[in-house]
Amino acid sequence: MDPREGTQSARKHKAILEAATTLFLSKGYQDTSVDEIAALAAVGKQTVYKHFADKQRLFSEIILGNIAIAEGFASAATDILRDTSDLRRDLREVARRYLAVVMQPSVIQLRRLIIAEADRFPELARTYYERVPGHTLTSLGSCFQDLAERGLLQTHEPALAATHFAWLVLGQPLNQAMFCGYNGPFGASELDHLADAAVRVFLAAYATSDPRP
Amino acid sequence: MDPREGTQSARKHKAILEAATTLFLSKGYQDTSVDEIAALAAVGKQTVYKHFADKQRLFSEIILGNIAIAEGFASAATDILRDTSDLRRDLREVARRYLAVVMQPSVIQLRRLIIAEADRFPELARTYYERVPGHTLTSLGSCFQDLAERGLLQTHEPALAATHFAWLVLGQPLNQAMFCGYNGPFGASELDHLADAAVRVFLAAYATSDPRP
Repeated sequence: MDPREGTQSARKHKAILEAATTLFLSKGYQDTSVDEIAALAAVGKQTVYKHFADKQRLFSEIILGNIAIAEGFASAATDILRDTSDLRRDLREVARRYLAVVMQPSVIQLRRLIIAEADRFPELARTYYERVPGHTLTSLGSCFQDLAERGLLQTHEPALAATHFAWLVLGQPLNQAMFCGYNGPFGASELDHLADAAVRVFLAAYATSDPRP
Repeated sequence: MDPREGTQSARKHKAILEAATTLFLSKGYQDTSVDEIAALAAVGKQTVYKHFADKQRLFSEIILGNIAIAEGFASAATDILRDTSDLRRDLREVARRYLAVVMQPSVIQLRRLIIAEADRFPELARTYYERVPGHTLTSLGSCFQDLAERGLLQTHEPALAATHFAWLVLGQPLNQAMFCGYNGPFGASELDHLADAAVRVFLAAYATSDPRP
């Protein structure tokens, strides 16, 4: 095969994904046709079908793109907390990164799209739930269990502690963004304040004593 | 006017609202026609237009129905907390009621519908945000400010404390319900456990000393 062919095919694949993302986000899944996706991607309709069996397959490939983002954050959080020597400082770092990742306009928009289509595609929504927020919560729960074993946190329910951490950090800005759009009124310093306040509440409940060993 | 006419008109008004709710929730706003609403409500299309100027007006009347629910909860929470003599017990009661109200299938479904249509109807979504979750948070913040003045809570940011309370209580089951449907895996005893755990975390951070004065 001509190497340029592979490159060109990859380029078309990417163009189709980007065009479909733009259209699904602006018009919704149901009101977007494969013709429109092909036109925006500047490829033929048959090329869309060659790359993606059908519109639903294209949809799932797009929304599952957040999986890589979630896995990246979960892995970074685990690295930060694994050998922490200053739990408050490091939890603040995790909280700030968590907000930075989740409050990205593209993540917010995809999240909204999946919620909107959850009745039409229950399996896809469930997969998303398990592999994006669910995966992050599982990883955080595992970190908190390790921290409890090291005597830095006190909890018999690390999975519950993980949900408390997550919703203390994300709840308010994420909920507001769901209704009021992804260019919400939150600036970086406000997000930092939310992150630090969340960690203060979390540690008041879960720290064993002085969280700086 | 014949009194029966008013009754009949009210009955039709209610039937139209119910039919539209059913259709919007199952098919989405865009894919529901006024013809279908009229057929399901067993009235003529002109009757729909007589009661509601257009489909959008009907939509806003439905989704703003959650306002009364939110106001009822906020008022009950204020009554419970106003003269509390056992803050832990009473916050648990508020947390349990909060979950019971928000996790109702109809509330969950309307919430999802508004998030889905937030791009199409940004003003409606913003109004909903302000008058449903926003109103509840404002009321809780006001309660927490009073409790701080009574020396039962310590906070300089009662509005932030209200968001912490709300998301400690609601975050996990509400998020799961957004993706996995409103008949989620949460039973009453699990919701009680979540409510009580949320209050424990909240009071660890915000109680002045012993929260039972």
